[in-house]
Amino acid sequence: MITKNETTTLTKSDNIRTSQLPVDAQFLRRWSPRAYDNSALPKKDLMTLFEAARWAPSAYNVQPWRFIYSIRDDDNWNLFLSLLDPFNAEWAKRSGALIFLVSDTQVPNRNPPKPFPSHSFDAGAAWMQLALQAQSLGYQAHAMGGILHQKIAAALNIPERFKIEIGIAVGQMASPDILPKSLKEREQPSTRLPLEQLIFNGVFRSLKPVEVNNES
Amino acid sequence: MITKNETTTLTKSDNIRTSQLPVDAQFLRRWSPRAYDNSALPKKDLMTLFEAARWAPSAYNVQPWRFIYSIRDDDNWNLFLSLLDPFNAEWAKRSGALIFLVSDTQVPNRNPPKPFPSHSFDAGAAWMQLALQAQSLGYQAHAMGGILHQKIAAALNIPERFKIEIGIAVGQMASPDILPKSLKEREQPSTRLPLEQLIFNGVFRSLKPVEVNNES
Repeated sequence: MITKNETTTLTKSDNIRTSQLPVDAQFLRRWSPRAYDNSALPKKDLMTLFEAARWAPSAYNVQPWRFIYSIRDDDNWNLFLSLLDPFNAEWAKRSGALIFLVSDTQVPNRNPPKPFPSHSFDAGAAWMQLALQAQSLGYQAHAMGGILHQKIAAALNIPERFKIEIGIAVGQMASPDILPKSLKEREQPSTRLPLEQLIFNGVFRSLKPVEVNNES
Repeated sequence: MITKNETTTLTKSDNIRTSQLPVDAQFLRRWSPRAYDNSALPKKDLMTLFEAARWAPSAYNVQPWRFIYSIRDDDNWNLFLSLLDPFNAEWAKRSGALIFLVSDTQVPNRNPPKPFPSHSFDAGAAWMQLALQAQSLGYQAHAMGGILHQKIAAALNIPERFKIEIGIAVGQMASPDILPKSLKEREQPSTRLPLEQLIFNGVFRSLKPVEVNNES
């Protein structure tokens, strides 16, 4: 559910995170679980995730993102699982859909080819909208850097000009109890660096610390 | 305002976009205007944008994003405007705050240095959360690729290991009438490529077109 600045601390059963300042609850509720319930993602919901991603901004509105997907137990499911590193495959096998997000490193329709420098940055924005829409629909999406890039390029026919950015497992969450002990212990939303370490007023790493509060 | 899947077409006064499938309205309502109202962004609202960005996901939770900002008419405002290319400076001078988003290209605290390959992708995710939170608070944020990278690095003391990703102008929108004629004509939300051109079932550019609808 999306709610607006209603809380800075989410309840424990929902999410243990606390924000320093009130933000839309969607940003705290979205996280990257590994316990999924073995159900296939309905195709209309998967399409809704892509629709949300589609509206991300990009330099010159180039929209460099492309999504290649398999829904649980369709013809390509086992192939897709084999394209993850074994650690990720072990938990992602219980997710509802697998996606590879690739980005176009070139400006479309240019001869000679012209690089498109913000392809990864823009793809990251599209991924974020996908993940937030997933949370809104009651799912969670988990991005995976641990994927087998060369195998993916060959198996899925990815043109050389596209960069394979991440794999994504998306699905309905399940109890952490289904996970092996080592993963079960890690099955909770991660924390973040304090805001004060991320922002600078005027000059990078100014000696003058930035005061973060809700008063000023 | 954030609303949940309530509509696929936003009213004309609000936003002319129509989605192919129902998505959270925030994704359609966020866009990149150039007409701002010359008011300074309240510091607490700017901090809320950074707070939203802070909760973005990143590989190994490294959080490579850093934000350097100036609020309209503070000591660094004119300096920040001079770091945009002249085309962007001309409209961004009416925005409420300017931000440069930089990303750490290395894994923190490693000797010898170790590259962090997803720094741009992850920074793009943080930018997206910032922009959505801005929209939710009644502002809009406009990312700018047209910025003076070398001048920024020197003026803002950006370490070499950080990549300067984008500039961001954020503020309260104003009537398009304040813009010069050429920009006034372009002052509306952009459209997107059809979903069918962005997604592939199983293999990149499969000959089998993906059917996008809300039934299946």
